[in-house]
Amino acid sequence: MISVEQALELVLQHAGKLQRCRQVNIEAALGCILAEDVVSDVDSPPHDKSIVDGYAIHEGDLSGENQLQIIEHIVAGLVPSRSLEKGLATQIMTGAPIPTGTAAVVMVEKTSTQNKGDLEFLSLTERSIRPGQNIVRRGQSMKLGDVVLRQGTLLRAIEIGLLAEVGRESVWTLIDPAVAILPTGDEIVPHTEKPPPGKIRNSNSSLLANLVMQAGGQPAESDIVPDHAETLLQAIEENLDCDAILLSGGVSAGVHDLVPAALAKAGVKQVFHHVNLKPGKPLWFGFFDRGDDRPPCLVFGLPGNPVSGLVCFELFVRPALQKMRWMKPRGLPIQRATLTVEHKHRGDRPSYWPAEYDSDSGQILPLSWQGSGDLRSLTGANALAYFPGGDRVWPVDEEVTVYLLPASS
Amino acid sequence: MISVEQALELVLQHAGKLQRCRQVNIEAALGCILAEDVVSDVDSPPHDKSIVDGYAIHEGDLSGENQLQIIEHIVAGLVPSRSLEKGLATQIMTGAPIPTGTAAVVMVEKTSTQNKGDLEFLSLTERSIRPGQNIVRRGQSMKLGDVVLRQGTLLRAIEIGLLAEVGRESVWTLIDPAVAILPTGDEIVPHTEKPPPGKIRNSNSSLLANLVMQAGGQPAESDIVPDHAETLLQAIEENLDCDAILLSGGVSAGVHDLVPAALAKAGVKQVFHHVNLKPGKPLWFGFFDRGDDRPPCLVFGLPGNPVSGLVCFELFVRPALQKMRWMKPRGLPIQRATLTVEHKHRGDRPSYWPAEYDSDSGQILPLSWQGSGDLRSLTGANALAYFPGGDRVWPVDEEVTVYLLPASS
Repeated sequence: MISVEQALELVLQHAGKLQRCRQVNIEAALGCILAEDVVSDVDSPPHDKSIVDGYAIHEGDLSGENQLQIIEHIVAGLVPSRSLEKGLATQIMTGAPIPTGTAAVVMVEKTSTQNKGDLEFLSLTERSIRPGQNIVRRGQSMKLGDVVLRQGTLLRAIEIGLLAEVGRESVWTLIDPAVAILPTGDEIVPHTEKPPPGKIRNSNSSLLANLVMQAGGQPAESDIVPDHAETLLQAIEENLDCDAILLSGGVSAGVHDLVPAALAKAGVKQVFHHVNLKPGKPLWFGFFDRGDDRPPCLVFGLPGNPVSGLVCFELFVRPALQKMRWMKPRGLPIQRATLTVEHKHRGDRPSYWPAEYDSDSGQILPLSWQGSGDLRSLTGANALAYFPGGDRVWPVDEEVTVYLLPASS
Repeated sequence: MISVEQALELVLQHAGKLQRCRQVNIEAALGCILAEDVVSDVDSPPHDKSIVDGYAIHEGDLSGENQLQIIEHIVAGLVPSRSLEKGLATQIMTGAPIPTGTAAVVMVEKTSTQNKGDLEFLSLTERSIRPGQNIVRRGQSMKLGDVVLRQGTLLRAIEIGLLAEVGRESVWTLIDPAVAILPTGDEIVPHTEKPPPGKIRNSNSSLLANLVMQAGGQPAESDIVPDHAETLLQAIEENLDCDAILLSGGVSAGVHDLVPAALAKAGVKQVFHHVNLKPGKPLWFGFFDRGDDRPPCLVFGLPGNPVSGLVCFELFVRPALQKMRWMKPRGLPIQRATLTVEHKHRGDRPSYWPAEYDSDSGQILPLSWQGSGDLRSLTGANALAYFPGGDRVWPVDEEVTVYLLPASS
């Protein structure tokens, strides 16, 4: 049975960068991946500017000892009309262009003013003023023609602000990975129905669809596929045009686990089945090559138990989606944390255990849960605690690795 | 001048939990705050079930030494029709209901079968089987009538999966905080225009609107408000019905910084103006009490420089939105990290410095940036590094506190 690391490497070998793009308005671009290089059409700042409210002074007055005549008031949005000379000063707002002849700007807090008739005079309380003080030069942040954002950049609030600064109304972005979700099994009914004896509601589709959304994919939920070879084959074939398919259920050792056979029949090449981890051992992975220039459709046969499905999603599907989206496939963020309770680990398989991580104290509490079907206990989890394979008692305060689950706000 | 901690306390004193709700389909509930307690309408599991593919056996056969006759095959979705007795076994799939008389389930991997005529027999390779092994009891995860999710819960993929499990098609959720964004200043033009000399594009509205979205709020962008007292007053009054208003610009010491005066005229009570931090010192904060049972409208006068605006948003607006959304107002997640370069800190004010954090190595690189107007350099930042006030050289490898900026996927 292959290890988590080997399995991840195989998944990433088959995951390819997506290429299809669409133009989106920058108001709707949060979380998108930029599909073009963005070039600035302006210098920023567009002029030598003051970074404080204060007074522009001449080189000859840097000693700070002279009384200066104020010749102009430049509020934001205006440009100076007069040059500075020794003995003159111009009042200037944060961000405003400095007059020609400016050597430095003195903060308003370090000045006082006095009126004499129609004239206004300035005294400085600051001495030995550094040339260039409080001035940012034109183009110091970026120059016209600079590539300011590269293809492949994840657009956060900051990048969208920058797109506005360079005048973009819309940008080309990658189309989100299309991820089909196929719940399988005669034992599940739609979540909108009351399950008869022996059956349970389909919670996996909701869980997986939202995990896909959190990971930047576009989920498409299929109807429940019964344990029937032909129907299963048809459902798989209908979705091979997607970037990925997540099947849930039908991959463990039971006689009615028809998924691997149906996938083979559909032309999906198996890469591995079973991974040495807990929960999630039955994971099946393969790919379907469409014979065009698109990356193959990745097919994940996820275990039907929701906790197993979640763990497999976070360890394998999320990094694959990251790679498809041109991001570093780093999976969940990792931390080290100290155990708040003793934890007994049993069995050969490395475990990824639902846990509650407290970032303030750096502590981790593995939660008690009732097997992989217990979604309720997972609601208390914001992390997975990692325990290597082997029987061992992990004492209180021992440090372990934790994977932080996404929070969404 | 008040400290960051004092300012945050004052902000949170005036931020109140929002109460308005709407019903959303669970497919559209990701990131919402639950506004009701959710009760389970089922036992989960709904029956005593097997957690493996294998064979249910009777108490009398726990030694593992007997050959057993297989009397039934229970695939997922079916219920057993026959009770077990000593000497009999029932094949069972993961999740399926166990027959009455079952003492334990043995994994299929620890069994072998043999056909004798029409009969099928089972041998076990496991000995001294623990009673209850591989069985989860009905209702062990949750019982009919249990409150499984509490009002105030942030709905992640896990919680939405659980809502499906308890049969919910829709839930009551809090309406997202409505946050008006008012960019002010004669020096800014819409980002869709080419700025004439002395002017710059409005990048703050895009930055702030997306920060609001990332924090779970609903932004409403206003047109640019010129430096004109009456227009400013009108724009403020038109937005006092929102949960919060973010003004950008017009709060520093310049003569045209009309915002505090207009806010006073609109009946917004000032709580503080200026905070001892860098960048972001000019921050203004107040509130407007509408005289009804809603929490007051919080009004933030953010500095016009985008980096200052970002820092003020993360330190003060995000925690306020968290409190409005019934969440713990913890702000950004915090980490300790070691400096990869020496950092010279100057000045009395504590600084929140754009930086690049590497979670793998736990290292932090403060970025060089060209003043608070330099949004471009921020695109490399995924964190703010904190340096307390006071002139000091921070050496390589020294540990500092970092605030992690949100990534969105």
